[in-house]
Amino acid sequence: MAHLYDLIIIGSGPAGLGAAIYAQRARLDTLVIEKAMVSGGQVLTTYEVDNYPGLPGISGYDLGLKLREHADKLGAQFAEDEVERVEDGGPGAPKRVICAGETYEARALILATGAVHRKLGIPGEEELAGMGVSYCATCDGAFFRNKTAAVIGGGDVAVEDAIFLARMCSKVYLIHRRDALRAAKSLQESLMALDNVEILWDSVAESIEGSGQVERLQISNVKTGEKRKLELQGVFIAVGITPESRAFEGLAEMDHGYIKAGEDGITSAPGIFAAGDVRTKQLRQIITAAADGANAVTSAERYLTEH
Amino acid sequence: MAHLYDLIIIGSGPAGLGAAIYAQRARLDTLVIEKAMVSGGQVLTTYEVDNYPGLPGISGYDLGLKLREHADKLGAQFAEDEVERVEDGGPGAPKRVICAGETYEARALILATGAVHRKLGIPGEEELAGMGVSYCATCDGAFFRNKTAAVIGGGDVAVEDAIFLARMCSKVYLIHRRDALRAAKSLQESLMALDNVEILWDSVAESIEGSGQVERLQISNVKTGEKRKLELQGVFIAVGITPESRAFEGLAEMDHGYIKAGEDGITSAPGIFAAGDVRTKQLRQIITAAADGANAVTSAERYLTEH
Repeated sequence: MAHLYDLIIIGSGPAGLGAAIYAQRARLDTLVIEKAMVSGGQVLTTYEVDNYPGLPGISGYDLGLKLREHADKLGAQFAEDEVERVEDGGPGAPKRVICAGETYEARALILATGAVHRKLGIPGEEELAGMGVSYCATCDGAFFRNKTAAVIGGGDVAVEDAIFLARMCSKVYLIHRRDALRAAKSLQESLMALDNVEILWDSVAESIEGSGQVERLQISNVKTGEKRKLELQGVFIAVGITPESRAFEGLAEMDHGYIKAGEDGITSAPGIFAAGDVRTKQLRQIITAAADGANAVTSAERYLTEH
Repeated sequence: MAHLYDLIIIGSGPAGLGAAIYAQRARLDTLVIEKAMVSGGQVLTTYEVDNYPGLPGISGYDLGLKLREHADKLGAQFAEDEVERVEDGGPGAPKRVICAGETYEARALILATGAVHRKLGIPGEEELAGMGVSYCATCDGAFFRNKTAAVIGGGDVAVEDAIFLARMCSKVYLIHRRDALRAAKSLQESLMALDNVEILWDSVAESIEGSGQVERLQISNVKTGEKRKLELQGVFIAVGITPESRAFEGLAEMDHGYIKAGEDGITSAPGIFAAGDVRTKQLRQIITAAADGANAVTSAERYLTEH
């Protein structure tokens, strides 16, 4: 029989670490299962985080470290393993977390696995990933100094990426499938003010070409059917995120892959809570993820008291 | 005519400052109205905050400063004034904030005035606040590991606090003025099962004693008049909190003085949002207040785009 923890937290991004901090302070017998060797989740690949209140201008990597150090300082326990599935014995019964390495058991779970960047699925995307194809302008933008890059997308992240890249690239294309951006007005204004950014409306990326590294992007106009080849060195894909919830299918109610839960983290499965980007919510930010961790622990404590 | 701001944030605790940071990044023309000369709200009087993820062991005063500095760094504007009432012209119309000093106008408001813990009003309570006297077991309990503490109160929060503290303290007294608890039955059962908790019925706290920090609690039995001195290091006062919402009466729907709003901060009054302790919510913590600020700004941005 595996040791029965009070609580297992799956994931070690800001939500998982926020939960770990609150669970340690509540003196719950807790294990955090993380798939990567380094905690922090998506935060790690963020160049500069300027909106985590109290830590202006910190790099994502440093913020990830700080959150992990906080959890460590309070004595949080971590295991590096990949969760394959969860077996839920129902209310009051142990929940089994089956991983690639081991199986762990707890009376309550917090699912905090976050989300990942969506792929386009076009030829060249996978082959040239890391060779000019990137999903994170803030991580990789610096390699494209005085070069030409394209950003694909039309939301906040795509526009933010284009603004960021315009500071170092000689030329930035923003490629968007519609004729208007979804991004916040202030972002759009900032974008329009930049003379080295060209927006290509009604356009989709069809393939990325190059031998060994990105050389060209083939696009086509969805209204006219016109095709065009852009000579460039970088392609930044910013078309959204996908929640990391596959291992939890059938465990709790979901909405487009997001685990349905309010701010208290309570899911349809008693004793199983969701926190951070993986749950249904309005705003996916580091600060809201960390707050989710605190809320989910509070709900878990209440559940543990009652079961 | 007063200048018409996009957004006025009332209150400069973690919710108000979190909102100010997000509003500045969204480039909204924003004013923060704070009643005190120093920002931070309740945080300022917290001796040590060990549960704001990323800043372990920081003092409340320093955290308040850091949050304010972050808002300042992004160019947030502050006015020191006392809000008397708010006149709402309805959806799309300006909202007037009538203060003791001036009247301010904005297209949207975020109410982030917080709440205050109810006091007992006994000798030693004020003098030893932060030196063993606490109003928040979730916040301060971890500092009383292997020590003796008393919780004063008989409702859900008092019983939850006693259960929480029993995990870390060697001994916990629960002091209640009646001979039965108001708390939920399930909580009472969990409490009764703990062998390091002693309930002192029909008892009221008369004074808290100690030089520099809490050493003793004087209690008396309301039926027998018998007095007793408890040797202890912590006194947790859990006799309720009062939201600071008097100035907003009639403005939006309330529940026991709390402004009714979900995590998105949306109230019954279009264009008026609530963030932090003043709104109806499960967990009133610094991290959840700061996240509320971010959420309320996101909702306000959406409202401003649409009106």
